[in-house]
Amino acid sequence: MQESAITVAIGPDPNAPRLLEKAVVGAGARVGPLADADALIWTGTPADFPAELPASVRWVQLPAAGIEDFFDAGVFAAHPGPTFTSAAGAFAHSVAEHALMLLLAGVRYLPEQLRATSWRQREFFPHVGSLRGKTVTIVGAGGIGRALIPMLAPLGAHVIAVNRSGNRVTGPGIGADVETVPADQLGRVWSHTDHVVVAAPATAQTRHLIGADELARLKPSSWVVNVARGSLIDTDALVDALRRGLIGGAGLDVTDPEPLPDGHPLWDLPNAIITPHDSNPPQLRLAAFADHVGANVARFVAGEPLRAIVDPQRGY
Amino acid sequence: MQESAITVAIGPDPNAPRLLEKAVVGAGARVGPLADADALIWTGTPADFPAELPASVRWVQLPAAGIEDFFDAGVFAAHPGPTFTSAAGAFAHSVAEHALMLLLAGVRYLPEQLRATSWRQREFFPHVGSLRGKTVTIVGAGGIGRALIPMLAPLGAHVIAVNRSGNRVTGPGIGADVETVPADQLGRVWSHTDHVVVAAPATAQTRHLIGADELARLKPSSWVVNVARGSLIDTDALVDALRRGLIGGAGLDVTDPEPLPDGHPLWDLPNAIITPHDSNPPQLRLAAFADHVGANVARFVAGEPLRAIVDPQRGY
Repeated sequence: MQESAITVAIGPDPNAPRLLEKAVVGAGARVGPLADADALIWTGTPADFPAELPASVRWVQLPAAGIEDFFDAGVFAAHPGPTFTSAAGAFAHSVAEHALMLLLAGVRYLPEQLRATSWRQREFFPHVGSLRGKTVTIVGAGGIGRALIPMLAPLGAHVIAVNRSGNRVTGPGIGADVETVPADQLGRVWSHTDHVVVAAPATAQTRHLIGADELARLKPSSWVVNVARGSLIDTDALVDALRRGLIGGAGLDVTDPEPLPDGHPLWDLPNAIITPHDSNPPQLRLAAFADHVGANVARFVAGEPLRAIVDPQRGY
Repeated sequence: MQESAITVAIGPDPNAPRLLEKAVVGAGARVGPLADADALIWTGTPADFPAELPASVRWVQLPAAGIEDFFDAGVFAAHPGPTFTSAAGAFAHSVAEHALMLLLAGVRYLPEQLRATSWRQREFFPHVGSLRGKTVTIVGAGGIGRALIPMLAPLGAHVIAVNRSGNRVTGPGIGADVETVPADQLGRVWSHTDHVVVAAPATAQTRHLIGADELARLKPSSWVVNVARGSLIDTDALVDALRRGLIGGAGLDVTDPEPLPDGHPLWDLPNAIITPHDSNPPQLRLAAFADHVGANVARFVAGEPLRAIVDPQRGY
């Protein structure tokens, strides 16, 4: 790629992570001092944010997905000139990968196999399933859902995406065969759903979205995966469904209550997989942020619309 | 799709599985009696195979990947007219899905998390990895390897495929970014390999392909997955590497010896996942065969070369 005339500053750390430098250079810009910069990639806190920015800075990339702190600190009000972008969506990949892991581990009967200390092939055979030809309903088609859909496609799973609008879900790697259903028609998906992944925001409307009725309409082989917020599933109804074998199992990175207290029945159910909200661990975040930065620098260089633009009035 | 004039018989079961009928019809042919058929999908044994086939039958699809039994029974010699195809490659998808499951479960630290009965988030955080940006070396680029590569792509993993010839691996969903390395240069991949999936046939050349030297050159975070044959890995060297933490862990659907005897050290190692050679369980095979049949009927209807054509002289 030919080097453009675009200069990107990375701050406040003078020894900026190499990964971010590589992302900037790989996207066709050069890394330089803030005084001459066209853009600023900010890895620090709102408190450290520069009181003044050079007039040359037309874009500021912030390091977090939720940037309420920058809003509260008055950063947007103090700098009306540049476009601000957040890291919204940047961390969705790791959470989607975790959801896929939980789903595959469940469908292929890993929990019981992991506990085994002898070769129980004939006993396990009938329990080993596959996602091929199965329908996975993803409740919530935000960043996580849109990252998960392309991961399911090569496994031969059919995807139903549920979002508020019912507008067709689109994005890189999302085929035309993905069915989109509006959340207010969620009731009609259960009869042809094999597995469910919950990846919707926690709101008053989504609380206990998966309760006794929904669980009863799933299959004895169905796995329910939650990587969003614990409150979207009615925990008591889930425990009951798991105990009675109404569903195959549950893979939960989030729980209600959270943290899940010692002695909670979910810890002991053989068909529940609990991971303690670690689908996006700290050490994976820098690499994910670097990918986001690379994509946005490439767009900036090309004069294309940036990802995750912040509305300075609303603060998100 | 417009219906073609092609008639496909399914035998010997007069109540042929609906899945096979659907595959035939979905591929643009019709299901009819053998007397008028252009092709025969055979789900039975060599002993039951028709002594005579109508002259109209130009193609016979057999139900197994290895068709030595049909060769030994003289089926090909008795029917020199039609083209025979096996089910070679049809069952690779399930094994590849299993390999992906084992790899993801390992990389994301599932075994220890499954054993936990309390919320150990801070302890688990540093151990949760991702395939994103990691290099997965797949030893063996046959059906399983070629099915696995497209599953790894949306996870952001880089793939090195190792085959005998070193000829570029190609196939549906396999991008140009997949690096192919000939088996005799396997030694040069280890320094830039993060994880290994063994999916090569068991031969004199591949015995103990992964031994003490290879394991020593991997990383403390590396997972080694074997879905091929136990003999490709030196089990004693693997146990030693797992005990000493030279690698992150091993996901094994096949072992040496197999079945793995009770009391074997692999059963008790916390970083070993053992599944008892159940990556392709009986109940998944019909669906996989139906997909293979559908693809081949579509090719037959279109006059394109069939998949997995049998050489009647060689018997495979």
